[in-house]
Amino acid sequence: MLNYHQQSEWTGDLGKLQSPINIVPNQFSNDPQRFNYDVQTDYILNQVIDDGTTIRLTGSGQANIFQRTFQFQQVHFHIPAEHLIAGARFPFEIHLVHQNAIGQKLVTALMATIGDANSQFEQILNSFAPKSINHVAIKITDWINFSAKHGFHYLGSLTTPPLTEGVEWLVLNNAPITISDEQLQRYRKLFKENARHLQPLNDRKGYSF
Amino acid sequence: MLNYHQQSEWTGDLGKLQSPINIVPNQFSNDPQRFNYDVQTDYILNQVIDDGTTIRLTGSGQANIFQRTFQFQQVHFHIPAEHLIAGARFPFEIHLVHQNAIGQKLVTALMATIGDANSQFEQILNSFAPKSINHVAIKITDWINFSAKHGFHYLGSLTTPPLTEGVEWLVLNNAPITISDEQLQRYRKLFKENARHLQPLNDRKGYSF
Repeated sequence: MLNYHQQSEWTGDLGKLQSPINIVPNQFSNDPQRFNYDVQTDYILNQVIDDGTTIRLTGSGQANIFQRTFQFQQVHFHIPAEHLIAGARFPFEIHLVHQNAIGQKLVTALMATIGDANSQFEQILNSFAPKSINHVAIKITDWINFSAKHGFHYLGSLTTPPLTEGVEWLVLNNAPITISDEQLQRYRKLFKENARHLQPLNDRKGYSF
Repeated sequence: MLNYHQQSEWTGDLGKLQSPINIVPNQFSNDPQRFNYDVQTDYILNQVIDDGTTIRLTGSGQANIFQRTFQFQQVHFHIPAEHLIAGARFPFEIHLVHQNAIGQKLVTALMATIGDANSQFEQILNSFAPKSINHVAIKITDWINFSAKHGFHYLGSLTTPPLTEGVEWLVLNNAPITISDEQLQRYRKLFKENARHLQPLNDRKGYSF
């Protein structure tokens, strides 16, 4: 299993475009016109998997993101958040992993805050069983289906080995998602912290909107 | 200088998405609607550089390619062609390297045939001097400004170290470009063959149009 206490021993693609990063908004160019995210087919989760460090759920769905068609593939979770926004670390980060027709990856990162319980996350917790795969049918389109979208777009990497670069990140910092403190504690009993260390921005350019 | 006779010693990103490849058209999905390539600002070359294995020219220009805005950065040449199309190797391949605002690279590959002399390539040959950098002003928008475009789109890599993956390739096989046999011989007197060996397609999906 991946050891988050010995990240220096992780191997993989270790170039200049690694993730996560601390997003310093005034280092990103503001360009609201760049943004588009239209869900074309509902995001539906169908399998719950114990991957050792988080709950991973595979699913289907389709969205037009930044003028291109992406297929939703899987969702998983990080405690605490991996990306920082202006130095702030949220308690919980949700990664929606997409791929397009030629194999480019785009991850939508949603920052959750603590508040009301999230009904879909409740279903996920209830359907999870250690070391097994369970079938579910959970619609999570609501997680991304909100009117005002504010966030950041930059080119980075997977945050677990093989740490592959060339992954597009869409980090949304006004996600309408809350989970309850009770849900966070249930999740914490199952998994340890799994945030990769911050990586240097180097000379990357990012966009905000 | 890069040694094309000892490519097994090249180091870099050696994953599953390497270029060049032999493009077998019936393994690519046909989808003419995917294609768009609109030049928004003329492609102008401004510097001629001897990079040891080819003539490299930096330049400026902008195009909307696959619904995204890319800046043209540089052009260079390969003899013979690096990509094969249905097993056919053209004598000369032109690489127009682009980058977008978040740092994604897209290379337009033009396959040239032998025929009439190309006036812009003549200017390039005339302005080249070994081991030096010369300033020029050569407009090459015509090289990509043709009505019917047929080609292939897939995800690959740079074909020279660091062999970085995640590079989008747009290989156009009906480029209207010819160079004369005399131009090819002039170029051959300056540079040796510089085609990287073919790389496995693995499970990549590509598109044709």
